[in-house]
Amino acid sequence: MSSFKVKFLPHNKEIIVSDGRKLIRAAMEAGVHINASCGGEGLCGKCRVLLEEGELEGGISEKLSREDIENGYRLACQSKVRSDLVIRIPTESTIDARVLNLQSTPRKTARIRKIDFNQLKEEGLFIPPVEKIYLELTEPDAQDHLPDVTRLVSFLKLQHDEHRLVVDMKVIRRISDIFREGGFKVTATLMRPVQEGRKTHIVNIHSGDTSGCHYAIAIDVGTTTIYGQLIDLINGKTISQYGEFNGQISYGEDVISRIVYAEKPGGLEKLQKVVIGSINKVINRVVKRADIDKDCISTITMAGNTTMTQLMLNVNPKYIRRSPYVPTSSIYPPIRASDLGIDLGEQVAALVYPQVSSYVGGDIVSGVMGSGMYRTDKLTLFMDIGTNAEIVIGNREWMACAACSAGPAFEGGGIEFGMRATKGAIEDFSIDPVSYEPMNITIGNVRPRGICGSGLIIMVATLFEMGLINNLGKFDRDLDTQRIRERNGVHEYVLAWKDDTGIDRDVVITEIDIENLMRAKGAIYSGCQTLVEEVGMSMADIEQIYLAGGFGSYVDIEKAIVIGLLPEIEHEKITFIGNGSLMGAKMAALTNRIRKDVVEVTSKMTNFELSETVSYMDNYMAALFLPHTDMEQFPKLKARLEARVQSRR
Amino acid sequence: MSSFKVKFLPHNKEIIVSDGRKLIRAAMEAGVHINASCGGEGLCGKCRVLLEEGELEGGISEKLSREDIENGYRLACQSKVRSDLVIRIPTESTIDARVLNLQSTPRKTARIRKIDFNQLKEEGLFIPPVEKIYLELTEPDAQDHLPDVTRLVSFLKLQHDEHRLVVDMKVIRRISDIFREGGFKVTATLMRPVQEGRKTHIVNIHSGDTSGCHYAIAIDVGTTTIYGQLIDLINGKTISQYGEFNGQISYGEDVISRIVYAEKPGGLEKLQKVVIGSINKVINRVVKRADIDKDCISTITMAGNTTMTQLMLNVNPKYIRRSPYVPTSSIYPPIRASDLGIDLGEQVAALVYPQVSSYVGGDIVSGVMGSGMYRTDKLTLFMDIGTNAEIVIGNREWMACAACSAGPAFEGGGIEFGMRATKGAIEDFSIDPVSYEPMNITIGNVRPRGICGSGLIIMVATLFEMGLINNLGKFDRDLDTQRIRERNGVHEYVLAWKDDTGIDRDVVITEIDIENLMRAKGAIYSGCQTLVEEVGMSMADIEQIYLAGGFGSYVDIEKAIVIGLLPEIEHEKITFIGNGSLMGAKMAALTNRIRKDVVEVTSKMTNFELSETVSYMDNYMAALFLPHTDMEQFPKLKARLEARVQSRR
Repeated sequence: MSSFKVKFLPHNKEIIVSDGRKLIRAAMEAGVHINASCGGEGLCGKCRVLLEEGELEGGISEKLSREDIENGYRLACQSKVRSDLVIRIPTESTIDARVLNLQSTPRKTARIRKIDFNQLKEEGLFIPPVEKIYLELTEPDAQDHLPDVTRLVSFLKLQHDEHRLVVDMKVIRRISDIFREGGFKVTATLMRPVQEGRKTHIVNIHSGDTSGCHYAIAIDVGTTTIYGQLIDLINGKTISQYGEFNGQISYGEDVISRIVYAEKPGGLEKLQKVVIGSINKVINRVVKRADIDKDCISTITMAGNTTMTQLMLNVNPKYIRRSPYVPTSSIYPPIRASDLGIDLGEQVAALVYPQVSSYVGGDIVSGVMGSGMYRTDKLTLFMDIGTNAEIVIGNREWMACAACSAGPAFEGGGIEFGMRATKGAIEDFSIDPVSYEPMNITIGNVRPRGICGSGLIIMVATLFEMGLINNLGKFDRDLDTQRIRERNGVHEYVLAWKDDTGIDRDVVITEIDIENLMRAKGAIYSGCQTLVEEVGMSMADIEQIYLAGGFGSYVDIEKAIVIGLLPEIEHEKITFIGNGSLMGAKMAALTNRIRKDVVEVTSKMTNFELSETVSYMDNYMAALFLPHTDMEQFPKLKARLEARVQSRR
Repeated sequence: MSSFKVKFLPHNKEIIVSDGRKLIRAAMEAGVHINASCGGEGLCGKCRVLLEEGELEGGISEKLSREDIENGYRLACQSKVRSDLVIRIPTESTIDARVLNLQSTPRKTARIRKIDFNQLKEEGLFIPPVEKIYLELTEPDAQDHLPDVTRLVSFLKLQHDEHRLVVDMKVIRRISDIFREGGFKVTATLMRPVQEGRKTHIVNIHSGDTSGCHYAIAIDVGTTTIYGQLIDLINGKTISQYGEFNGQISYGEDVISRIVYAEKPGGLEKLQKVVIGSINKVINRVVKRADIDKDCISTITMAGNTTMTQLMLNVNPKYIRRSPYVPTSSIYPPIRASDLGIDLGEQVAALVYPQVSSYVGGDIVSGVMGSGMYRTDKLTLFMDIGTNAEIVIGNREWMACAACSAGPAFEGGGIEFGMRATKGAIEDFSIDPVSYEPMNITIGNVRPRGICGSGLIIMVATLFEMGLINNLGKFDRDLDTQRIRERNGVHEYVLAWKDDTGIDRDVVITEIDIENLMRAKGAIYSGCQTLVEEVGMSMADIEQIYLAGGFGSYVDIEKAIVIGLLPEIEHEKITFIGNGSLMGAKMAALTNRIRKDVVEVTSKMTNFELSETVSYMDNYMAALFLPHTDMEQFPKLKARLEARVQSRR
């Protein structure tokens, strides 16, 4: 069988592959990332590559325009290598991970909630699950030859009133040498039981006094990104943090395509290894940044959605996508991190946040815990918006939750020029009311390459308020501007002409894009409404909103109300909690109270399957307007729109 | 570097080794066992091999007679390979493992104690640490989509009143498929907590009803041998058993030489792997013999002395041999068997018996638990005699224990023709009172090759009672027999002339051998006496004796009293418990009560260091006679000896 050399530009990476190899596989093997939203099925058209030299078999698709094809563009997932090749990867087909670690600049309208360590301490809730104690033991002699472990346990009992102690094997294996290296002066790391009356484990031991070096890791395991923090357990500070794409992206962008991959032979093991690899990258980076001794990390907390959690724990998620959508477990026992392949010492037990259902997972539970929602008296709406929008409504007494399948519009999916919130994405937008010319603000201030989810909301809200589209999302065909045009029977608005973009094509927003956004926001709004109504209340009863998620941090509240994504509520009642999953993970590292409460809270979260709730479809249909068919739900917006119409007359 | 071919006879195994390789290493690598009592230090002279072809460097030692050397005998541990070789391994330099699994034929005088399962049941003590429960669950549907694990836990709560349940990761990883394979009819394996109020772990799950297949493994990890049993947890029966030499023998015969080896770089890891290898051989053999599904084994209990326990758990035993002789731990937490390399499923937690001190280990604690000594009211002397003799004295209220360094005489060490109780060992012996001609009975009824420990006791007792030796162990030089002769200035008795033996040499017992035995028995008797006196009692207060160990099963009680090894007590008060360590391991598989009680019992066992007890040396000196200087402690024997002297006059 013959082999060919494939060179990838601009990376300038080469690889030898055998005849007939899928081009996207070759790229993967060469370490070159190409977007594959659909997991390599040829459906999303995101893996466009430019054939500069050589010959490919296949790769031509209706996802490519005739012009693209003539210019040498192919879909990498549909192409087979048939000769030596030079392939250029367009920037829009790759991801730039650097942007993940840019400082986020939340909207001015945002109230931001962060963990208040001092308050935590004052409330007596700073109870880290691990503690380090420095001990000066007496040395054994002819009259006192207690076994080393017994010496340690007795001393802790007598001098520190510690009881029900279990010494872990790792400690037993090291204790004799450590005692003698340090002249019987040692620091023991104790892991506290979550439930009172259970055992305290001695999980680590160091020679000398290392009680000042005491750390935890918190990880948010997202479908797209993995975020991690290194937390100082002495002062509660986040010492370093880092974000990295979840390496599983190469096997499909959404949870369903990951589940499909996991069902293939060896697929689960592969995905487990890949996500742990990404987690390890994050851990090693935060450790390196902080320049600490890794052996002083004593605990790790991880939160992820149900599929991510099962994949990372090597639990096949296959029944999650099959009716009646049963996850394998709600609660997972603490597990030794190193048993999962996590690059931390044997002393580290991993806490994994529990799940409510197949589509309301540990990331949401973590957000509910981290935000403090589970301790508030106010009726709170918690929303985490992504491909799936998860909604929790309730307070300290009760909680109802649901997942809405919003579709990928907020993450750029189903939008012709949709993209993630990375460099070149239009994130802010306005229109000249006379000329209808646009002003695009992009992430990184470069030429526009596409539209990110938060930008899309602003765009549609602006087009609506400026009268370019009506409440059905259709363009006003009569306006005097070249920006609105018809292409292939679909009306669109040109955001940037080819010469002004970073991708050598016009960047546009089409009526189909707008329709997709309306479906997405409609699904979420009607989900909230259905949930509220199911518990016998109405949207007007909501006292506050917590917005979680990377998307949540960027969304413009006013515009989100204009399109009818959020209910009309005073802005100061909306709080952005950022990455709620990470926040909850950090909280669990700071206080054992969370670990204790979470089991009860999770069991209290009543899950609703919207698809099986009769009123949902009616609510959904009513929400497929801008902002809604029932304008009484948006009285202020209604007044504003009416005033505008008045002024135009 | 040149290489040479070494062929070993009679095994007919060949191996290529590099120039200068130690011959004993070459044999090890070829899988040919050669005894190395001293661990390859050239001290014991047990690794004699015959050089049939080729050239060796070194290997000549004072341990070999001039005749041996001329005939081509060399010490394998002192020889280096310098050419192609043919080496014959004499039978006395190897071990025949087959004899381990012969049915033991205890002395007629023996009262044997075995586990009485029915009694255990009647007393309500049949509480296995693991239980299997068959469950018929309801299937999930659109109205009931509990997670699989929650479904299992809820059902056990509601239908079986099981609480505080934790589901292990192994079960979580399998549960979803197992539920659906078996139509939601499954068998769960529950591991019960040792302490009430703690959690019950669900450690395994099978599709369908497998509750009838439910097994445990019990292992005695001896310095020399590993014994294992497969136990049916439904009816308490031992289904199969097997013994195997501890593979560590190749690295030294006694615990001290093992510790020395473990201190070398990589030594600990090597010895750990080797002993686990032997344990796995035993497990696989008992499983194969019983023809059961290994996944139905749910627990394993292991007992061994302190050094064996530490080696098997990968805990360096180096401080055991250094003053003040501190072991690393008394109690070890339950550990997943597979984490140690044991060839059992992830569901199996290994219980390891706790230790009292560096020289009173888990094998003794196991014997104390298994024999029921810890529940008796009678003042009991428990003895386990080997290289070290461990003694426990006490009852349900209190216990004192000590280890006596008896030396290796009872296992054939320090005895010129001493050998283990294997084929060809003289195990019974008598003398014609007129001709002084011997009658030797050997194990396997073959020509004598040497003397095993129990045979040696009979021999010395007989020589003493027949007047061939005096109470100092010296031969009567005036007797009319060629059997008593002087060689190299030492008097000896010829047990078998060269032509009648299996080893082509005269087999003899020398005054030095007798002196070594007297030192050994003196150490043990005076150890018992010292211990009894330390707690304010005397030897006469002892109400019963439990004799443990392979040696214990073969010892002739009457003869043991004659030489002064055992105190003079009615034979019916002496009970042989056989392998007490294995018995205790089995008991821990049958009843959780043992696991609960053992922690308290171990803490109750007061350890005495005889070397630091003032009276020990005096008691020892007084015991270096046959049977003792203080004949008042042996009144019946005294009367018998006096009667015999009378009759001769």
